[in-house]
Amino acid sequence: MNFNKYLENYANLIVVSGLNVQKQQTVVIEAEVESVELVRLVTKYAYRQGAKEVVVRYSDEVVTRLKYENCEQSVFETVPTWLSNFKNDYAAMNACFLSIISDDPEAFKGVDPTKMASWSKSVNKECRVFRDLLENSTNAWCIVGASSVKWANRVFPDMSDKEAYDALWSAIFKATKADQEDPNAAWIEHRASFERRVKYLNELNIDTLTYTNNLGTNVKVSLMEGYLFAGGGNYLQNGLYNIPNIPTEEIFASPIFDKTEGIVYSSLPLNYNGNIIDEFYMEFKDGRVVNYGAKKGYDVLKEMIEFDEGSHYLGEIALVPYDSPISNMNITFLNTLFDENAVCHFAIGKGFSECIVGGYEMTKEELQEKGINDSLLHVDFMIGTNDLHIVASSKDGQEIEVFKEGNFVF
Amino acid sequence: MNFNKYLENYANLIVVSGLNVQKQQTVVIEAEVESVELVRLVTKYAYRQGAKEVVVRYSDEVVTRLKYENCEQSVFETVPTWLSNFKNDYAAMNACFLSIISDDPEAFKGVDPTKMASWSKSVNKECRVFRDLLENSTNAWCIVGASSVKWANRVFPDMSDKEAYDALWSAIFKATKADQEDPNAAWIEHRASFERRVKYLNELNIDTLTYTNNLGTNVKVSLMEGYLFAGGGNYLQNGLYNIPNIPTEEIFASPIFDKTEGIVYSSLPLNYNGNIIDEFYMEFKDGRVVNYGAKKGYDVLKEMIEFDEGSHYLGEIALVPYDSPISNMNITFLNTLFDENAVCHFAIGKGFSECIVGGYEMTKEELQEKGINDSLLHVDFMIGTNDLHIVASSKDGQEIEVFKEGNFVF
Repeated sequence: MNFNKYLENYANLIVVSGLNVQKQQTVVIEAEVESVELVRLVTKYAYRQGAKEVVVRYSDEVVTRLKYENCEQSVFETVPTWLSNFKNDYAAMNACFLSIISDDPEAFKGVDPTKMASWSKSVNKECRVFRDLLENSTNAWCIVGASSVKWANRVFPDMSDKEAYDALWSAIFKATKADQEDPNAAWIEHRASFERRVKYLNELNIDTLTYTNNLGTNVKVSLMEGYLFAGGGNYLQNGLYNIPNIPTEEIFASPIFDKTEGIVYSSLPLNYNGNIIDEFYMEFKDGRVVNYGAKKGYDVLKEMIEFDEGSHYLGEIALVPYDSPISNMNITFLNTLFDENAVCHFAIGKGFSECIVGGYEMTKEELQEKGINDSLLHVDFMIGTNDLHIVASSKDGQEIEVFKEGNFVF
Repeated sequence: MNFNKYLENYANLIVVSGLNVQKQQTVVIEAEVESVELVRLVTKYAYRQGAKEVVVRYSDEVVTRLKYENCEQSVFETVPTWLSNFKNDYAAMNACFLSIISDDPEAFKGVDPTKMASWSKSVNKECRVFRDLLENSTNAWCIVGASSVKWANRVFPDMSDKEAYDALWSAIFKATKADQEDPNAAWIEHRASFERRVKYLNELNIDTLTYTNNLGTNVKVSLMEGYLFAGGGNYLQNGLYNIPNIPTEEIFASPIFDKTEGIVYSSLPLNYNGNIIDEFYMEFKDGRVVNYGAKKGYDVLKEMIEFDEGSHYLGEIALVPYDSPISNMNITFLNTLFDENAVCHFAIGKGFSECIVGGYEMTKEELQEKGINDSLLHVDFMIGTNDLHIVASSKDGQEIEVFKEGNFVF
C-alpha cells in the first residue's frame, strides 16, 4: 500500500469533493488527537484551495471518558459559551465543517448513558444556529474516517496493532476511492451512478414501502406527496455541490413520521456514543416505537430511543444494495459512516428538509405537518440483509418490487 | 528509567504542588497534541483531587505554522470570541491553568515575525480578564515541560528519535524531581531553600545591582523602596500556595523600569515564538533598550524588543546560581522554562505586582509610578555565566557582593 500517496489523495478528496472548499472560506476541522496526520494534510490542501483560515479542534476520548466518569450530572447540562460560540460563529460566517472519525467503538462502554444524552441535548440546543445552517444546506459539512489503533483493534481483533491499523487504513482508502488514481474524478462518476435510481424512485409515486426478511423484519413505511429521494452528494443552497459523507452508497428519503407500522430487526451492530448495541429490534405503531429490545447494549438503546419525543419516530430510510462495494469488503467497521453504506438502514430522529419538494423554504412546523420528523437526535441503524425484500405500493395502487434478495430490482 | 512511575509522579506533582487543585475547581490544560500521555495522566490526578471538570485544549504546531504561512495579516489581528471567552470565562470562574510545553524550539523559523507579534498582542488584549486574574495571583497557573521528538531532536541532535525523546524525559524528570520517591515532599524542601536567601535580599535595602562578566556585560539595575524578591512558589490572594513554574531555581525581583544603565550579553540561546535567538546583546539608557544586536535571529529579537513600548524596558531580574542542579546537568534545553533555571536572567516586558510591598492592591498606574514595568510582553533571557559578578549597593551606601564567579556569595 502506498500509504503516503493515498493519504494525500484522501486529504485532497476531502477538501475538493467532500467540503468543496471555496476561496476565502474558513474551514473547521474536528478530530481526535489520533488523526493528527490526516488533519495536517487536510489543512495543507484546504490552504491550497485558498481557505481563509483552517481552525482545528482536537478532542481526546480518554479525557472525555474521564469526564463522564468523574463529573457530576450538572456539568453535562451546561454548555460553556465558548463552545456554542465556536460552532455558531463559524457557521454564521459560512465556514465548512469537517468531522474526522477515528473513535474506539467502545470508548464509552459502561459510562452512564444519561450523562451522554444530557450532553448531546445541551450541545444541540445551544448550537442551534450551527445545526440549522448545516441542516438546511447553507453550510457545507463532511464526515470522514481515519484509522486509529484503538478503532482498528476492534475491527481486526486478531491482528497486531500495526497490522490492524494498516488494514483499517487500507479498507478506508478502498471504500473512499482514495486508492484510485484520481479520486475526485472517481467520485464524479460515482455520484452520477445515483442519479438514475433517484430519478426512478422519485417518479414512482410511492405511497408505501414494505420491508420483509428472514430476521423477522416486517415493516411498512409511508412516503408523502412530493417526497424526494437523494443520494451521492448535496447541492447547497448557494448552488455548490459537496459530499457530506465519504464514503456514501445510499439513496435516502424521509418517511411520514407517524405512519410506520410493524417490526424491524437490526442486521449489523450499531456503534452509538462509544457503545455497541447489537441484535436489537424496534416495533412501530402509528410511527412511534412502542416496543424494543437488544441482546447487547439495551440501556444505551433505551437512552437513544427515549432521547426526546422525536427520537421515537423514523427520520430517514436509506436504500443500499447488499452487493455494494463496501458490503463486498466483508468488514464490519463498527462505525456507522461505513456500515450504513454496506446495507439498507433506517434512522430514528430528525428527518431531512431536502427530502421534500420545497423543504428548504418550509418552517419546522410546515415540515412536520408534511410528515418530516423533528428531533435533536438522528441515528442510523442497519437493517439490510441478503434476503431483504422491499415492495413499493404506488399512490395509484400498483405494486412494484424495489429490492429482491438484498439488491435493487431495477 | 522507570518511565511510567516517573510520569505518574510528575502528573501528581503538577496537580498537587504545581496547580494545587482544589475540590470543585475547574482545571484548564493547554498542550500540544504530542503530550497526550501526560495530559491524560494530569486529568486523572486532577479528578482524584476532586476537580469539578478538566478542560483540555490541544494545539498543533504544524497546523499553526501552516496558518502563519498561509493566512493574511488580518487573521492575526482578530481574536475569535470563542477563544477570549474560553480564557476569560474559565479565569472568571476561578479555574486553574496548566500549560504543557513540548514545542519544537524552531517550529516557526522563517515565519513572518509580524504575524506572530500581532497574534500575541491581539490575544493579550482580548484575554485581559484572564491575564489580569493570573497576574495578580487570583488564579493558580503552572507551566511544565513534556518531551516530544521534535523538541528532543534539537536538544540531542546526535541521538535517534527514540533515544533523544527518552533522554529529554529523563532530564525533565530529574530537573523537576519527578524521579524522586516523593516529589511533593521534595518540593516542600526545595521551596524552603529559597526562603533564607529571599529574606536576606529583602533585608539588604538594595539600591542598585551591578552585573559584570567577561562576555562584556556591564549593567546596573535599580530597585525601588519596598522591593520584594520572591522565589520557589507563590501565595495566591486566597492564601493557597502553588508553584507556577516546574522546575524553578530562581529568586526574582522587578527593577525600576526606567533606571537600568549599561549593556548586557546573552549567555544561552533564547527560544522565542518558535525561533532561536543567539549571541545577542541589549544596551540600556534610562532603562530603555537603545541598541541591540544578535548573531542569530536578529529579526525575531527586533520584533520582540519592539513589541510595544513596555517591551523596551526590564520587568524582571532573576538570580540563579551557576552551580544550580539544572545548570549542572549541562544540557541546553532551548526552552526558557528550563534554561532560565540554569543561570541568572533578565526579562523585558511586564513586571510583577508581587515584587513590591502592597503591589496586589495597586492600580497599574500606581505600580508604574513605583517603577514596575508594564507591557503585553514578558520574555526572559539568560545572561548568567560562570564568571558573573554582582555587587549590590545599599541605600545607605554600602557595597555588598551578591554573586561571585557565577554563584551566590552568601
